[in-house]
Amino acid sequence: MKVYLAGPDVFLPDALEVGRQKTEICRRHGLTGLYPLDNAVDRAADDASLQIFKANETMMDQADAIIANLTPFRGPGADAGTVYELGYMAARGKFCLGYSNDPAVYADRVRRSTKVTAQAGHLVDADGLTVEDFGHTDNLMMIHALDLYGAPLVLPREKPVDIWHDLTAFEICAALAAARLISA
Amino acid sequence: MKVYLAGPDVFLPDALEVGRQKTEICRRHGLTGLYPLDNAVDRAADDASLQIFKANETMMDQADAIIANLTPFRGPGADAGTVYELGYMAARGKFCLGYSNDPAVYADRVRRSTKVTAQAGHLVDADGLTVEDFGHTDNLMMIHALDLYGAPLVLPREKPVDIWHDLTAFEICAALAAARLISA
Repeated sequence: MKVYLAGPDVFLPDALEVGRQKTEICRRHGLTGLYPLDNAVDRAADDASLQIFKANETMMDQADAIIANLTPFRGPGADAGTVYELGYMAARGKFCLGYSNDPAVYADRVRRSTKVTAQAGHLVDADGLTVEDFGHTDNLMMIHALDLYGAPLVLPREKPVDIWHDLTAFEICAALAAARLISA
Repeated sequence: MKVYLAGPDVFLPDALEVGRQKTEICRRHGLTGLYPLDNAVDRAADDASLQIFKANETMMDQADAIIANLTPFRGPGADAGTVYELGYMAARGKFCLGYSNDPAVYADRVRRSTKVTAQAGHLVDADGLTVEDFGHTDNLMMIHALDLYGAPLVLPREKPVDIWHDLTAFEICAALAAARLISA
C-alpha cells in the first residue's frame, strides 16, 4: 500500500529528515510512504510552484491512502495545502487517515489568539464570526471525512513537547493503514 | 449549471442574507447557486456536524462547479472547510473557481502576525517554518488547482473596505462560470 504523507512537515527546517523518519515508519509497517519532498523539482525554475503542484498530484494519484498531519499551522487550524490534499483524496475514494499533535478543541484554539464570546446560543470571535463548537479539534469537513473514509482523527492525550517532531500519532496512523491492508 | 458556493460566509452574523445575495447573482448569470446554509439541518441534534458534512457533500456532488471564497480566515490563509471542498471538487473533475478579497501575497499576510526573515535563500517565520514565497496569495495547491481546473484566482486590485460583504470578485467568478456554460 502506497501512502501519501501530507503535512506542513515540508516547511520544517529539517523537512527532509522528518520525511526520512516517516517513510521509515511506513516501511516498518509494510507500507510505502510517498513524501512530497521526494519529488525532483527545480525550486529555482520560473514555474517551480506549478511543478510542485503537479508532482504532488501525481504522488496522490499513485497512492492508496493519505496520512494527513493536521496539527495547527499559523493559526487555529490545519495547513491549507494539507487540507486541500485531504479533500482531493477523499473525493478519489482513497483511505483517509489524519492526526493532530494538538488535542485542544477548536474553540480553545481560537481563544489563544482572540476573544471568544457566547452570543444568541453560539460562540463568536472578536470579529463576530461564528466559532464552530461541535467539540471537534478543527473544521467539521476534515473531521467527518476521516470518520467516514478512514478512521477518526488520531490525537495524543496531551500535546507533545515538540509538536513538529513527535511521530507517535503518525505511527498510529501508519498502523491503521497497515491493518486496513491486511483486512483488504 | 449548478454552482456550489463554498466559503466562510456561513460563519458571518448575516450568513443567510449573504447566501441570498450570492444565489441571486448566480440567478442573474443563468446559474443555480447551492449555498451550504440552504441545507435543512437540525443544529441542536447530537450528530449535527455529521449532518452538515453529509448535506454539504451531497450539494457538492450535485454541483457542476465550485466558487470558493478564499479570503483569509483567522490567519494568513483561507478557511479550512472551504479548502477541503476545493480539493474535493478538483478531484471530482468539477469546474473550479475561487476569489479572495485580500490581494496581498502570502508572505505579506504572514508578516501581519509574525516576523518573517530571509535565511539561506528562503523566507522563514518566527518559528523557523518556511514561508511559501512564489508570489502567490496563498498555498500553491489551491492556486494551481484553480489555474488548471477552472480559472486563476480572482483578486480585487485593492482590498475592499468590507472584505466579507463585497461581492465584486464573487460576481466575476459567476460570470466566468456562465461563460463556461455557454461555451460548453
